[in-house]
Amino acid sequence: MSGFTATDHAMMARALRLAERGAYTTRPNPMVGCVVAHGDEVVGEGWHRRKGGPHAEVFALQQAGERARGATAYVTLEPCAHTGSTGPCTEALVAAGVARVVAAMRDPFEAVDGKGFERLREACIAVESGLLETQARALNKGFLSRLERGRPWLRIKLGSSLDGRTAMAGGDSKWITGTQARADVMHWRARSGAILTGSGTVLADDPQLTVRFHDDTDFEPPLRVVLDTGLATIARGKVRAGDAPTLYLHAPDVKPPRDFAAERVAVPLRDGELDLDAVLGLLAARGINEIQVETGATLAGAFLKAGLVDELLVYMAPVLLGERARPLFDGLRIDQMTQRLQLRLVETRHVGDDLRLLLRPQQSGAGSA
Amino acid sequence: MSGFTATDHAMMARALRLAERGAYTTRPNPMVGCVVAHGDEVVGEGWHRRKGGPHAEVFALQQAGERARGATAYVTLEPCAHTGSTGPCTEALVAAGVARVVAAMRDPFEAVDGKGFERLREACIAVESGLLETQARALNKGFLSRLERGRPWLRIKLGSSLDGRTAMAGGDSKWITGTQARADVMHWRARSGAILTGSGTVLADDPQLTVRFHDDTDFEPPLRVVLDTGLATIARGKVRAGDAPTLYLHAPDVKPPRDFAAERVAVPLRDGELDLDAVLGLLAARGINEIQVETGATLAGAFLKAGLVDELLVYMAPVLLGERARPLFDGLRIDQMTQRLQLRLVETRHVGDDLRLLLRPQQSGAGSA
Repeated sequence: MSGFTATDHAMMARALRLAERGAYTTRPNPMVGCVVAHGDEVVGEGWHRRKGGPHAEVFALQQAGERARGATAYVTLEPCAHTGSTGPCTEALVAAGVARVVAAMRDPFEAVDGKGFERLREACIAVESGLLETQARALNKGFLSRLERGRPWLRIKLGSSLDGRTAMAGGDSKWITGTQARADVMHWRARSGAILTGSGTVLADDPQLTVRFHDDTDFEPPLRVVLDTGLATIARGKVRAGDAPTLYLHAPDVKPPRDFAAERVAVPLRDGELDLDAVLGLLAARGINEIQVETGATLAGAFLKAGLVDELLVYMAPVLLGERARPLFDGLRIDQMTQRLQLRLVETRHVGDDLRLLLRPQQSGAGSA
Repeated sequence: MSGFTATDHAMMARALRLAERGAYTTRPNPMVGCVVAHGDEVVGEGWHRRKGGPHAEVFALQQAGERARGATAYVTLEPCAHTGSTGPCTEALVAAGVARVVAAMRDPFEAVDGKGFERLREACIAVESGLLETQARALNKGFLSRLERGRPWLRIKLGSSLDGRTAMAGGDSKWITGTQARADVMHWRARSGAILTGSGTVLADDPQLTVRFHDDTDFEPPLRVVLDTGLATIARGKVRAGDAPTLYLHAPDVKPPRDFAAERVAVPLRDGELDLDAVLGLLAARGINEIQVETGATLAGAFLKAGLVDELLVYMAPVLLGERARPLFDGLRIDQMTQRLQLRLVETRHVGDDLRLLLRPQQSGAGSA
C-alpha cells in the first residue's frame, strides 16, 4: 500500500470530503465519494446522496463524460458489482474506460466484499485499495459497525454541568446548556439513523427528538425509538409528533391499548429490563447504522455498564448544580479506583459558552473507527 | 488614553512579558517589567525579581546607561516615589534623564498611589498611564486583590473525573489525573503565596503541598496553610516536611501539645467552623497575594458558598468514577435550576490525556482582573 503518490492522497481526501456531504441522507447506505482525474486534473466528482439514487461513481462519470477514458477513479468504498436499486458501478467504470481504480477500502457488504475489485480486474482495470482506509472507516463507522458487529454505532449525548450533573434532584434539566449547544445537537441527530430514549425521559421531559434546522439543510428524519417496557408513556405525545417515524420497544407480555397507532415491537427481557443487546440487534436488522441515545442517568448507565457505548458526546456547561443534583450515569457501581471507566478524549470544542467533548471508551469494539 | 502609538503598545506588551518572569519570586511585591526605548529601539529592559532586590526600572536604566537620556520608559506599574527596601525609582528615572514615562496603571499601594506620577511630572517628565491596563491588572490580580479587597485572590484547584467526582467514596483520589497534569499544578503552586488545605485532606492524603520542579526554575516556596479547627491532624507530618513554611489555623480555645513546633494562629469561629473571611484577612495581612486551595469537597464547597472563590482550576480526567464517588463540592444546597452557580470558562487546554479548565464565577469581585 506504499505505492500511492501525493496526488493519489489529495484526490482520495477530496473524495472523502465529498462522501461526507451525504452524512444526513444516505442511510442506511454508506457515505461514498468519487473523484475522476487525470493526474492533478479533476474531470468529474460525485457523492452518494440517497438510497435508491445514483451512486457516487455514476455522478462522477457523468460529469467526466468522454474525459473518463484513461482516467483514475478514486472511490472511498469498493464499487458495487451487483444490481441493487441501481445498476452495478463496476460496469459503469468499465464502460467509461477508466484505466485505474483506487479505493479507500473493501466493502464488507456481502453482495460486494471483493467482487467489485474482481470484476474490475477482469476488465483489465488496475485496482488498488487501502488509501486513507482509516479515514474511510471512521467516516462510515456506523455502517461498518452494523455489518461487522451486527449492532449500530452507539453514541450517548449528554448535557452536563461542570460538576457532572444532568438534572436537578426534582428532574428539571431545562436548560443546562446554551442555545448554541442545543443547535449543535441537531447535526448529530441528523447523522443518526435512530434517536433512542427511555420512558423516564419521555415522562420527565416529553421531548420531540426530531431534527430541527434553521435552514433548508437536507436530511432523512431519524427513527425515534422509545424503550418503554410497559408502554406506560404512550400518553406523552411529542415523541410521536412531527414528520419522523417512532418505534416503541416493550416487554413481550404487554398489550397496547386498542387505539395505539404507533409502531411497536416486543423485545425479550433480561433481569426485568429490555435486553439491550436484543434492542441493538433489532435496530441493526432495520438498517440503523448510528444510534444517538438521549436519555437520563439510569438508561445511559445501563448502556455503559453493558459495554455498548462507542462514543460519548458531552455538552458541558460552566455551571455548578451541586451535590444533590442527578448524576451523569446511574448504576455504575464503582467502588475502587481500579474499577473506574477509562475514556479517551477524541475532540474538544467550545460551542457558545459551553464545552463540547467527544470521548470514547478506551476499549471500544469498533475496529479502527 | 487614545494617544498611544503601535510602538507604545508593542513596548508595553514587552514590559508585561518581562514582568511575568517574576511570577514565582516577587511575592509579596507585584510583578513589574520595564522597557527603555528610543522609538522602536530598545536600549534597556528589566523586571523585578525579588522583594528587597532592585526594581524593574533600575535594571532597565542600568542596561540603558547613557542611552536612557531622552528615552521613553515603559513600566507596567507606576514607579515608586518612596524609599522601601530600595530607593525611589522616580529619582532613578529623573537622574537618568528619560523624557517620557508610560505606565500601564497607577499603583494602589498607599505609599505610591499617584505620588510617583506626581514626582515625575514635577521633574518635567511627560507621564501617561493606562496603556494595556486590563492586562496589567490581570497580571497582578493577587496583589491588587490584597490591596483593594483586603483578601488574596483565591483559586481552587480540583482534580475531577468527567462525571464531576474528586475521590472514591472511601476517600481514594490517587490518581484521577495523569502525571502531566500533576506537573502542571506545580506552576500554579509556585505563583501562589499560600497553598491552603483542610484537616480532612491532611488526614486522608497526608499531602506535602510543596513546589517540586524537575529543573532549576527559581521560586519562592509558598506558605502551607492548614485549616485545622481542633489541631487534630498535627501527627500527619508531610505538610511540615520540606523547605516551605507551614501555618496552622485553629479555633481560639484549642491548646496545642507542648512539643508543637509549627507556627499557628487562632481564628474566630462562625457557625462552629473557622471564619473564612477572617482566614483570608489574616493571610492578606501577612502579604499573601494569591492563595491556591487544594482540598476536599467540604472545604471547597464552603469557600464557594461564601462567595470567596475567584477562580477554579479544574484538571478533568476522561474517566468515570460513578455515582457513588465524592462530589466536586459539598454543601452547595442547590435545589432549583435558578440557584445554580454560573461560571465563565476562561481557558481550556489539553494537558497530557486530561483537560485543564480555568473558570471564574460570573460575578467575581476582583474588578477587571
